[in-house]
Amino acid sequence: MKGIIQDLKGRKAVYGDDWSNAFAAGPGIFAPIAYIFFASALPVIAFGEQLSRETEGSLSTVETLASTALCGIIHSLVGGQPLLVVGVAEPTVIMYSYIYTFAKSSDAVGKTLYLAWAGWVCVWTALLLILLAVFDACNILNKFTRLAGETFGMLIAVLFFQQAIKGMVGEFSPLEHEDEKSPDSSFQWLYVNGLLGVIFTFGVLITALKSRKARSWDYGTGWFRSIIADYGVPLVVMAWAALSLTVPSQVPEGIPRRLQTPLPWDPASMGHWTVFMDMGKVPPVFILAAFIPAVMVAGLYFFDHSVASQMAQQKEFNIKKPSAYHYDILILGITTLICGLIGLPPCNGVLPQSPMHTKSLSVLNGQLIRKKMVKTAKESMMQHDSKSKVYGKMEEAFVRMDGTATPSAAKDLKNLKEAVMSKDGSESSFDPEKIDAYLPTRVIEQRFSNFMQSLLVGLSLMAIPVIKKIPTSVLWGYFAYMAIDSLPGNQFWERIVLLLISPSRRHKILERPHASFVETVPFKETSKFTIFQLVYFLICFGVTWIPVAGILFPLPFFFLISIREKILPKFFQPLHLKELDGVEYEEIEGDPLRTRSMSLRRIDSREGGPGFDSQEAEVFDELTTGRGELRLRSTSVSQEKSNQVYPGNFLDD
Amino acid sequence: MKGIIQDLKGRKAVYGDDWSNAFAAGPGIFAPIAYIFFASALPVIAFGEQLSRETEGSLSTVETLASTALCGIIHSLVGGQPLLVVGVAEPTVIMYSYIYTFAKSSDAVGKTLYLAWAGWVCVWTALLLILLAVFDACNILNKFTRLAGETFGMLIAVLFFQQAIKGMVGEFSPLEHEDEKSPDSSFQWLYVNGLLGVIFTFGVLITALKSRKARSWDYGTGWFRSIIADYGVPLVVMAWAALSLTVPSQVPEGIPRRLQTPLPWDPASMGHWTVFMDMGKVPPVFILAAFIPAVMVAGLYFFDHSVASQMAQQKEFNIKKPSAYHYDILILGITTLICGLIGLPPCNGVLPQSPMHTKSLSVLNGQLIRKKMVKTAKESMMQHDSKSKVYGKMEEAFVRMDGTATPSAAKDLKNLKEAVMSKDGSESSFDPEKIDAYLPTRVIEQRFSNFMQSLLVGLSLMAIPVIKKIPTSVLWGYFAYMAIDSLPGNQFWERIVLLLISPSRRHKILERPHASFVETVPFKETSKFTIFQLVYFLICFGVTWIPVAGILFPLPFFFLISIREKILPKFFQPLHLKELDGVEYEEIEGDPLRTRSMSLRRIDSREGGPGFDSQEAEVFDELTTGRGELRLRSTSVSQEKSNQVYPGNFLDD
Repeated sequence: MKGIIQDLKGRKAVYGDDWSNAFAAGPGIFAPIAYIFFASALPVIAFGEQLSRETEGSLSTVETLASTALCGIIHSLVGGQPLLVVGVAEPTVIMYSYIYTFAKSSDAVGKTLYLAWAGWVCVWTALLLILLAVFDACNILNKFTRLAGETFGMLIAVLFFQQAIKGMVGEFSPLEHEDEKSPDSSFQWLYVNGLLGVIFTFGVLITALKSRKARSWDYGTGWFRSIIADYGVPLVVMAWAALSLTVPSQVPEGIPRRLQTPLPWDPASMGHWTVFMDMGKVPPVFILAAFIPAVMVAGLYFFDHSVASQMAQQKEFNIKKPSAYHYDILILGITTLICGLIGLPPCNGVLPQSPMHTKSLSVLNGQLIRKKMVKTAKESMMQHDSKSKVYGKMEEAFVRMDGTATPSAAKDLKNLKEAVMSKDGSESSFDPEKIDAYLPTRVIEQRFSNFMQSLLVGLSLMAIPVIKKIPTSVLWGYFAYMAIDSLPGNQFWERIVLLLISPSRRHKILERPHASFVETVPFKETSKFTIFQLVYFLICFGVTWIPVAGILFPLPFFFLISIREKILPKFFQPLHLKELDGVEYEEIEGDPLRTRSMSLRRIDSREGGPGFDSQEAEVFDELTTGRGELRLRSTSVSQEKSNQVYPGNFLDD
Repeated sequence: MKGIIQDLKGRKAVYGDDWSNAFAAGPGIFAPIAYIFFASALPVIAFGEQLSRETEGSLSTVETLASTALCGIIHSLVGGQPLLVVGVAEPTVIMYSYIYTFAKSSDAVGKTLYLAWAGWVCVWTALLLILLAVFDACNILNKFTRLAGETFGMLIAVLFFQQAIKGMVGEFSPLEHEDEKSPDSSFQWLYVNGLLGVIFTFGVLITALKSRKARSWDYGTGWFRSIIADYGVPLVVMAWAALSLTVPSQVPEGIPRRLQTPLPWDPASMGHWTVFMDMGKVPPVFILAAFIPAVMVAGLYFFDHSVASQMAQQKEFNIKKPSAYHYDILILGITTLICGLIGLPPCNGVLPQSPMHTKSLSVLNGQLIRKKMVKTAKESMMQHDSKSKVYGKMEEAFVRMDGTATPSAAKDLKNLKEAVMSKDGSESSFDPEKIDAYLPTRVIEQRFSNFMQSLLVGLSLMAIPVIKKIPTSVLWGYFAYMAIDSLPGNQFWERIVLLLISPSRRHKILERPHASFVETVPFKETSKFTIFQLVYFLICFGVTWIPVAGILFPLPFFFLISIREKILPKFFQPLHLKELDGVEYEEIEGDPLRTRSMSLRRIDSREGGPGFDSQEAEVFDELTTGRGELRLRSTSVSQEKSNQVYPGNFLDD
């Protein structure tokens, strides 16, 4: 209980600021809102279609969108860490698929009581989560290492890819419930549907991947490239969906196959309010049996939610307000309960949207502060103030905007001070336009952006008639894109790749930014570790293929945690394990992880005029991975985590 | 006449060596042969299909292959420069298309006498070429500058692209001669054909482009990457053709549409021998009228043939044997006449196959020499010879393999000598394996490879039943690939791109290898030049769209030559013109073109064992462009050309 209370105290103190901060930021706040809205909504739409296929329409896009909106609004209003973004995630979809297969196979439950039984699973899950929160279970989070996290991330990527392939091949076959005599089912039109599917799937995949690199393109203005890099993927999906509407009129209406979901105001959707009443109809045996999947779901949610929260609060982001892990698990339990009772799939904290959220708020903040300080500096210099006075005014402006106390501001602005003061010659040798390199990272920590993006997801329910026009093959391409985009930065993937590179080319890896283990750990040891991880991963993947018992697929990951703690140290040297998979409980006193630090050096902005600071965003692009994780840590693991699970002295100074 | 006689004397002297050199090279000679065979045959097959569409089947792949084989064999046996590769090229295809449109439109000639009339065009062309050769016209070659050459190259690229798009869109429509009632023509199957066409065209384009970069891949052994980089494009075409055979059996036989050509032993093909007799049936007016297209063709061939020959003999290749421009034009006239008389489209020297030929022979030579010298060095060092003795033996081995006189060998091996001698300490500090950096470039100059690759083209006529399985959409993708692959290295293209890059990104160009004009010519002047060239290019392209008179499309290029000489110097400063488009007649005495030289530095080969020297090839990949031209010249234009049009003192020493 202690953890929850501490969290509550910490966040209650800053609750007012959580809202006022947003309004101080001005209308620029809508850029991160739009950015995260698209990043949240698109996967949720895709997962909805996957769910619809797996549950034969019992759940679909309308439910996933509604759930994401509802849980998102609740979390932004009463949740602990407002930077954390929640939504329906792939593990939930997989769980619900297994639950459906089980429900359908047993006569007592069947398709009709599926949602009711799933509701019982949610009840047990909520109970378990609340217990975990109350008993300060978050303290064991540090045992969830990179090894388990990345293996799980690889599993998700592979499952995405599997869905993409399954979907694309499935475009050549009729849907199960389709009428065999309709023209849509004739071989010719099925073949056309399949070919169109191939074109759209690969088209979306290739163009989406290309758009991600837009910031480094040579062509186009900075503004254009930023728009493409940030909104490229939703634009790509919309473009291909629009293209699919230009099929010749002789092609039957159902080709290409499009997203299947009832409208929010259809009876099928409105019927959800009765799930609560149906829950009483489930036989007691099954109510008890629901406990087993609930354990799996609760465990998954516990880790997923907290890791996503951790990623949103990495040290490099300079988060000032306290974390609230215990309290957030409590809220998660409550939202899971609510969702289960109205027959919606529950939500949890999502990657990579959470660190993306933080990143976009930091870029925005950087722009605002920069503008203010440059203005101040220029005014001051026009008045021919002395250098120390110029710096003093800049520091004042910074403190005012940032809201931090002066001593810590002075510490953060040390570089800037040196730059201003140490220029010899005339004062005009200090160019205010070039202060980017000296500004520290700051994030606008508030709740408004999270609330607004969840509201937008809710409003998009009104747009479902338009969303229904998206061809399913476009969504399969999007699945493939999600899979591929999550790989860079996953060190497991990078180590697998390292195995495939011939020895003579290995020196090329050293020429690019690389993780430290490439240099410090002998290649044989890295291979051993990677092969172990690969075999374990294949076991996990194999479990997902078991028809009903596959619901136990999170179990191997729970085991992995103890394997990491107890068994691996017997096979690998401590130093190597530290480099490959550092954990707090293994750190040697006084010997921080030797990692290569990469200072957040910003490129001089040569783009004229106000607007999107694309240079800064470009630097961030290179520094962070698809998961949102900063590629290279510059602090030790324990330093980072101690700040988070046990909030620093924020309140006690 | 003087030029031809001089050429003949020079080449006659080395004729014997042209053959013996090849056998001295051993079985390794078959690698360049295979490489050039694929590089020649594939475009010729594609052009055959284009010709078949344009001439409604009067000419097709069987004729283009036969012509390439015939002219190639003749040229390799009696031609002047054996490194020059000949084949049917796009300008020929375009010319023959115009000739067909004209022939069809006039009743007197019509489709039946098309080939006969084309034969008369060839007769006039041959006459003109022989006259050009006899009157030493090659001396005006230096007026054909980069400006004209690159504008023409851009036109060819655009025409390739146009054909690719035309072809891909055409897959959705029935072919003209197809029966409208056959199932192939129903909308459904046409649509399937079109969709398959889109998939194949883009598939070939994307995979072919990716395979070109294989040498710099991280994965796979060096040997594997070399195979992919060199043979990737034919492999891609074969792979997609094979894939096209896996269409489900319910799809009609004609889908996807495949290459249309008669077999070599069909009456349609054998009928060519009667073209000669038909030529008498052409009315005299038309015989005279054939002179007009002949002027265009002769002009085009004259420049194309000679420029291809120049590119195959660039100074960096260290060609030792004399050139033979005048004589080669004479031979070209003769082969054109032969082709015209038997109703085949004539051939001329082709880019980029000619410099590719030379390059592959130089890489091969490098391997052989290296092997021998390393062996010699190691033996010598095992006997504990003194350093100068080690070097002496290596020089002996080099001279023996290379066949050059000792003084020039000593000059070329200067770097090697320094490396061997100046190592202090023990003798073992000189590593024989690392001599790549010190070996000069040498090309195995012989006729065998050219003869064999032409023979293989002839033999592939036997394989036409297999070639007919290639879907036409695969060929359209190949056209698009050819277009895109020819752009890098075309400075016209690079200057266009420069116009599109926003000013703030321009500094990025300076970070990569770039031509000197980027630094020495003000951007405004470069833009002026580029826009002039662009407008002129659009005019040339526009001419190709005029139905019959479009045959005069080479005229603007002939004009461009005088425009360059007379008019442009009035608008641009001499220094700028030199940088953007250097010509010999403008060189200021004692002031060679300032260009950035890039030494042919080779990377230490870390690949173990014998086989393809991929490192060397990789360096060459970076140094040469899609056209085969070395990206950066290290000598002045006049130095380069004086060696070629007027052979040096090879015979007079």
